[in-house]
Amino acid sequence: MNHLIEKANVLVEALPYIQRFFGETIVIKYGGAAMIDERLKNMVMLDIVLLKYIGLNPVIVHGGGPEITRMLKKVGKETQFVNGLRITDDETMEIAEMILSGKVNKDIVALINKSGGRAVGLSGKDANLITATKHMATIKKSDGNGGVIEEPVDIGFVGDVESINPEIINVLNKEGYIPVISSVGASKDGKGYNINADLAAGEIARALNAKKLIMLTDVEGIFERFGDETTLISTLNLEEAQILLNSGKLEGGMLPKLQACITAVKAGISRAHIIDGRKPHSILLEIFTHEGIGTMVVA
Amino acid sequence: MNHLIEKANVLVEALPYIQRFFGETIVIKYGGAAMIDERLKNMVMLDIVLLKYIGLNPVIVHGGGPEITRMLKKVGKETQFVNGLRITDDETMEIAEMILSGKVNKDIVALINKSGGRAVGLSGKDANLITATKHMATIKKSDGNGGVIEEPVDIGFVGDVESINPEIINVLNKEGYIPVISSVGASKDGKGYNINADLAAGEIARALNAKKLIMLTDVEGIFERFGDETTLISTLNLEEAQILLNSGKLEGGMLPKLQACITAVKAGISRAHIIDGRKPHSILLEIFTHEGIGTMVVA
Amino acid sequence: MNHLIEKANVLVEALPYIQRFFGETIVIKYGGAAMIDERLKNMVMLDIVLLKYIGLNPVIVHGGGPEITRMLKKVGKETQFVNGLRITDDETMEIAEMILSGKVNKDIVALINKSGGRAVGLSGKDANLITATKHMATIKKSDGNGGVIEEPVDIGFVGDVESINPEIINVLNKEGYIPVISSVGASKDGKGYNINADLAAGEIARALNAKKLIMLTDVEGIFERFGDETTLISTLNLEEAQILLNSGKLEGGMLPKLQACITAVKAGISRAHIIDGRKPHSILLEIFTHEGIGTMVVA
Amino acid sequence: MNHLIEKANVLVEALPYIQRFFGETIVIKYGGAAMIDERLKNMVMLDIVLLKYIGLNPVIVHGGGPEITRMLKKVGKETQFVNGLRITDDETMEIAEMILSGKVNKDIVALINKSGGRAVGLSGKDANLITATKHMATIKKSDGNGGVIEEPVDIGFVGDVESINPEIINVLNKEGYIPVISSVGASKDGKGYNINADLAAGEIARALNAKKLIMLTDVEGIFERFGDETTLISTLNLEEAQILLNSGKLEGGMLPKLQACITAVKAGISRAHIIDGRKPHSILLEIFTHEGIGTMVVA
Amino acid sequence: MNHLIEKANVLVEALPYIQRFFGETIVIKYGGAAMIDERLKNMVMLDIVLLKYIGLNPVIVHGGGPEITRMLKKVGKETQFVNGLRITDDETMEIAEMILSGKVNKDIVALINKSGGRAVGLSGKDANLITATKHMATIKKSDGNGGVIEEPVDIGFVGDVESINPEIINVLNKEGYIPVISSVGASKDGKGYNINADLAAGEIARALNAKKLIMLTDVEGIFERFGDETTLISTLNLEEAQILLNSGKLEGGMLPKLQACITAVKAGISRAHIIDGRKPHSILLEIFTHEGIGTMVVA
Amino acid sequence: MNHLIEKANVLVEALPYIQRFFGETIVIKYGGAAMIDERLKNMVMLDIVLLKYIGLNPVIVHGGGPEITRMLKKVGKETQFVNGLRITDDETMEIAEMILSGKVNKDIVALINKSGGRAVGLSGKDANLITATKHMATIKKSDGNGGVIEEPVDIGFVGDVESINPEIINVLNKEGYIPVISSVGASKDGKGYNINADLAAGEIARALNAKKLIMLTDVEGIFERFGDETTLISTLNLEEAQILLNSGKLEGGMLPKLQACITAVKAGISRAHIIDGRKPHSILLEIFTHEGIGTMVVA
Repeated sequence: MNHLIEKANVLVEALPYIQRFFGETIVIKYGGAAMIDERLKNMVMLDIVLLKYIGLNPVIVHGGGPEITRMLKKVGKETQFVNGLRITDDETMEIAEMILSGKVNKDIVALINKSGGRAVGLSGKDANLITATKHMATIKKSDGNGGVIEEPVDIGFVGDVESINPEIINVLNKEGYIPVISSVGASKDGKGYNINADLAAGEIARALNAKKLIMLTDVEGIFERFGDETTLISTLNLEEAQILLNSGKLEGGMLPKLQACITAVKAGISRAHIIDGRKPHSILLEIFTHEGIGTMVVA
Repeated sequence: MNHLIEKANVLVEALPYIQRFFGETIVIKYGGAAMIDERLKNMVMLDIVLLKYIGLNPVIVHGGGPEITRMLKKVGKETQFVNGLRITDDETMEIAEMILSGKVNKDIVALINKSGGRAVGLSGKDANLITATKHMATIKKSDGNGGVIEEPVDIGFVGDVESINPEIINVLNKEGYIPVISSVGASKDGKGYNINADLAAGEIARALNAKKLIMLTDVEGIFERFGDETTLISTLNLEEAQILLNSGKLEGGMLPKLQACITAVKAGISRAHIIDGRKPHSILLEIFTHEGIGTMVVA
Repeated sequence: MNHLIEKANVLVEALPYIQRFFGETIVIKYGGAAMIDERLKNMVMLDIVLLKYIGLNPVIVHGGGPEITRMLKKVGKETQFVNGLRITDDETMEIAEMILSGKVNKDIVALINKSGGRAVGLSGKDANLITATKHMATIKKSDGNGGVIEEPVDIGFVGDVESINPEIINVLNKEGYIPVISSVGASKDGKGYNINADLAAGEIARALNAKKLIMLTDVEGIFERFGDETTLISTLNLEEAQILLNSGKLEGGMLPKLQACITAVKAGISRAHIIDGRKPHSILLEIFTHEGIGTMVVA
Repeated sequence: MNHLIEKANVLVEALPYIQRFFGETIVIKYGGAAMIDERLKNMVMLDIVLLKYIGLNPVIVHGGGPEITRMLKKVGKETQFVNGLRITDDETMEIAEMILSGKVNKDIVALINKSGGRAVGLSGKDANLITATKHMATIKKSDGNGGVIEEPVDIGFVGDVESINPEIINVLNKEGYIPVISSVGASKDGKGYNINADLAAGEIARALNAKKLIMLTDVEGIFERFGDETTLISTLNLEEAQILLNSGKLEGGMLPKLQACITAVKAGISRAHIIDGRKPHSILLEIFTHEGIGTMVVA
Repeated sequence: MNHLIEKANVLVEALPYIQRFFGETIVIKYGGAAMIDERLKNMVMLDIVLLKYIGLNPVIVHGGGPEITRMLKKVGKETQFVNGLRITDDETMEIAEMILSGKVNKDIVALINKSGGRAVGLSGKDANLITATKHMATIKKSDGNGGVIEEPVDIGFVGDVESINPEIINVLNKEGYIPVISSVGASKDGKGYNINADLAAGEIARALNAKKLIMLTDVEGIFERFGDETTLISTLNLEEAQILLNSGKLEGGMLPKLQACITAVKAGISRAHIIDGRKPHSILLEIFTHEGIGTMVVA
Repeated sequence: MNHLIEKANVLVEALPYIQRFFGETIVIKYGGAAMIDERLKNMVMLDIVLLKYIGLNPVIVHGGGPEITRMLKKVGKETQFVNGLRITDDETMEIAEMILSGKVNKDIVALINKSGGRAVGLSGKDANLITATKHMATIKKSDGNGGVIEEPVDIGFVGDVESINPEIINVLNKEGYIPVISSVGASKDGKGYNINADLAAGEIARALNAKKLIMLTDVEGIFERFGDETTLISTLNLEEAQILLNSGKLEGGMLPKLQACITAVKAGISRAHIIDGRKPHSILLEIFTHEGIGTMVVA
């Protein structure tokens, strides 16, 4: 019995957090280990369904790089990267979109529904959710005189977010559904573009005027000294975050995550978090405990 | 960190119960130690606010016998009881109503509001919530020939529930308030009647088509053999409950509680519970654990 | 028949007033003789129910000083006053709240309902309607040198209105109920405070952006020369009212009434009235006749 | 002052009637002296606006025979009658419709609006409100052998109500307008038909499931012995009304009035009244006094 | 089959126009040949019903000068004109109103309903739609010294629009009805005034914030040189339109039409059109073709 | 100009059909040439957007067999068929789902949006739209004695529709979106199943209580004698359709189409059509012309 009372205590301890976030929108960038490990996946889904039932509006944004790579291999297609961005020709884009909107997205939807939620999968094409423009990439080159010049390079169907139309998300939230969004955008003439999911999540949080943006990743947060786990940074204000972003000290995958946090916080979202998706129930830990986890960006 | 994860697990374990009771009405008869002990009182309030936030509609019904007795003493008024019912003359009724609707009710309201809920106190007079008729009491008397006769006895303003008008409760539930109801009814000409709070709770559960009725009391439940704590009865179906009610084996205070459970279950409420309000968070334990606690009456 | 036609004429004469106040909120401070005399009480209730049916939203605010005094006597509690304010210790406050929220309030509710309305009684604790802070009283003392100093004095649980949350009143109005409010407020930690009902009515009128504030009292209005009934003042503008308030010429009970009128009119309520509750149907007379009755404060 | 209190008393006496008819629809057939005498006209309009403001939904139906006759004379058109029905050729119908929908209807609308109401005039053509079919008239003729035969006779554009589409009336009621309906119907191909306004009122009351049907006429009601004013019949049940209708004892204009009452009461309208429109405020007298006036038909 | 495919193509070609005007209000001044020729009349009605079904809100405004003249003749009433305005005494106004609101209006209503729409006829009296003031006419006179003076002349019940209350139109539009409005206004005391229908249409378009104003007339549009059909003006901006209006070059009937267009465009309506109602389906041609027809006034 | 008038005539001719189908749901099974030929694709999209704008609720259901086959080839996966059904192992299902929900679905969505509509793509997994169960296939085998036995055969993730939850479709229709549904269902534990799109369309039409079901295919309809185009069957009643279905005379692809039509019509959909998607605007031709095209199944 004491064990049960202990459990009830935990529920009651969550009350202030439930009150604080009641009716608020939380954008969750879902990715990394939490999207691969079966046990972690199930836990994330339960966390999301729980959030919905206790009155929050979770909105899920996801990419799917590793799955895209796997499928490209399967069809014998080689990929090249420029500045960490995949050169995306027509055939690559077709595969990428199928994986993102037809496999990863629907897997998440099915898992949430199995966990008792009511998810609806969307790509940025649906209801004109994400309008994209071609990403203008450049590479640095020697100018032959010891100097360096930036030269434009066409990397195909890699897109930037031009605008977000949050209408369909608001409809789904109001009707009790959980939106799950793949990071594919459409240009005005309907062509699909692959968009970095971290950046898409930041823009969606901005358009929804979300209360929080949570980026699930595979490290504990941002470290003062990369690799040294004793130097986890708990909080960054906007200025510090911007300096860090420009410092060149961050490893590649962290750049768009921090960029997305900055975008969101600049737009008025009060807190953006980079947290460790390898921890069980990391989303709940972030929302329902005083200390929070990972690295938080604030205004 | 593991400790926190453990806590998150508890939240997730509650999910199936949250889903089951989402949007449902739970009538809670509040009384006994949980209404006196400061620590228990606070816990009950937190439990109720939590229920509201996670999507249930708790409705609180209360009496206040000990407080009435205390105030009657203070004004030097002696009370007599017939069949366990207080003989309630005009002056007694005035004191009883003031205590129930003006003190106990408002204390509960203030505590819930302090705990972050939004409570509205009602008596049965408000919005014609409880229409009462005079309770027709009888006493057994010797007929002088060794037989026994029942003789009517006027015990004053003690009432039976004639009808419940749940309209105002539905309005308050819909608008996010927690209704707190004192067990005072009004006759059609506006006169106040003191009603047994257990029975009032049963009738209110019936009128609201509640999902559950929970009676807080000061014992663990109903015992096979009164006083022998190893004989707690977990479940009674309607037939068993009725036999037990008529058996004469139950002590006085348990009679209206069991009667209220039977009333509610007969009317279609699927489960009615008599639970131990002395246990911390007993309401949550009943709703959010598989085993439940106390004695449950089912159809 | 002519008699009947005469009656129909009266109804039709009311039409311009019905049109003017259609859908508007009228705050009525109920007190004095109209709250004691049985016949007057019934008339006030009929007036209020009529107002509701013809499309106005009457909101009733009441105190209950005489009843509190009576009950304090009954329990043998002596009361002292400072500046006309009752020194209110814990025990006094308990009695006051019981009388206000548990007796006077519920009596009014029952009477309105009996008259065909649908009233809901509230105290300032319900739905956080009235947030109170401790009233800081002072007494004047000789400084020993022929001068006078003001010295703070603790008079217990006497409160000032800190804020009004009119949400629950709006809900009840919209759903067709008549709110009846006892002048008890709660501090942020849930402790009850006794508030002057006149002042509470003024603040509630302000928060509701009412069309009118009507103060029922036991004189015909404010007199130029107190006691000389030929000197009734029909209209005071804000400046005149303020001068009169500060003049020291008003007897004690009139001070908070005039203060409440000033508060309301300053906040944009177009007209506030001090009228004679001893007159039958004085509320209707004020609203439905060209001349009005009593003293009116305007901007 | 006593005079004013007397007036307030009258308002309060109306309360039970206001309660009884709150939200109900009352169909009023407007005609006779009350449509000609300027003073009576204004009184009827005030009565109607008052009904609307105190929560009833008055619906006005009118004809305009005398005005039609006047205009026909003006254009030098002779009229013939068969069984009291005007033979209505194309030209006559054009004049009749103009008078009914363009003059009488708009005059009533303007008067109501001037009195503070918000009226909208409709003919049966608007929103397909009244679908009409040609009235099949017959005349009795000698068969040459001392017998009598019925022979069909074409009286032109005189119509019977085939169906009522109350949709637009419900829209206008809900939005706070007072519908004023001229007794012109349209056949399915859009041709206008002149319909007896009494019968149209009965059918509209039926279609609206009205609470009351009130026929304004120029006599006090139906008399046991026509001409003997001491023989006014207060109440007729359906059976009695039908016998009287068939008795041949009623003068011509009363026939469709009584027929309309029977139609309405048969369809479930609880009370239909034939009242004296020459009395000031006769509509209010009927609705707001215990005795009522005129002749009432009940089930 | 190819013929059918051709037809389907036409439907699809209309799509961009349907999208552009979806949910928008179009005010149509109906008059001239299109109101007299049976075949044209039917076509206009079909056009209007089609507009309603595909999501636009057509609002019809009409006059009826020729019909008024015809009826005046019939009753032997002579008419005189001042500055092209009919001197309108009481009797003339009675006839005019009957014709406009009782004949022309109801004919249009019946035709629309027969064509499958749901029309409701209104005059400016209904729901206080058009408030009118007396038109102040002047005539020019010799001052006896070779000069010219303007002298006021009373032309009776000819009115100017003082204000439009579009409430009832919005109600009808929302509920799926097509409003048909006769150009009769009411002064504040309920007296009817005859208003130029072109000007009324312009004011109604302004009050409704319409997307388009379309004036049906009996010429192809406005010509550079009156009578020379090769000089049709396609587009006029506000400045050009104003110059033309003041130039004295326009024939009488075109003046109020152009004035109405200017009024509407000045008030923010983006386009106002004067088109040839003698052409079949001229309304559809204007709305659903790229070139449009007639003369268009733009900002 | 005459050419334009001709066009307007076509629009007006569509009016009766627009009226008939206003507000109704039309389920369109999209497939065959109309899903491959670029020009036809664009035409179908325009047809669908037009239907939405003129007040119908088109719901699109699609498969994607040829695309699945192409992708399977690309990854070097061989496919086998049993009774025309693809044996669908885990890997095949992954490819099938990606193609259906990630490529074909999103291509349609993007095309509709580009054409001015607002489409939202769904698979049967979203919002639990299609619950599937494993299809129990059998093959016929010789029993070795000259007889034939049916033997169950596992063909993997090929599913039958167990139930349709139309909630999300109703939400999207109400909010002005066009739902586009891929024929993938989910079992209760979230596993994806490939479902014949024809059959899925029939079940969805049934669940939505659609007005019409339209199956786009690559022949003109059903022929009395397959291959003989002069023997097109215009109409089949349910009995005739069932006989034909069982006759063995239909070629394989037509079987589920006719089955879907029978399912829909049996469930109360009044008309189901098999039409030639190779014809431009075939959907409009079917809906907006008197003769219709293809083969129609009726009750």
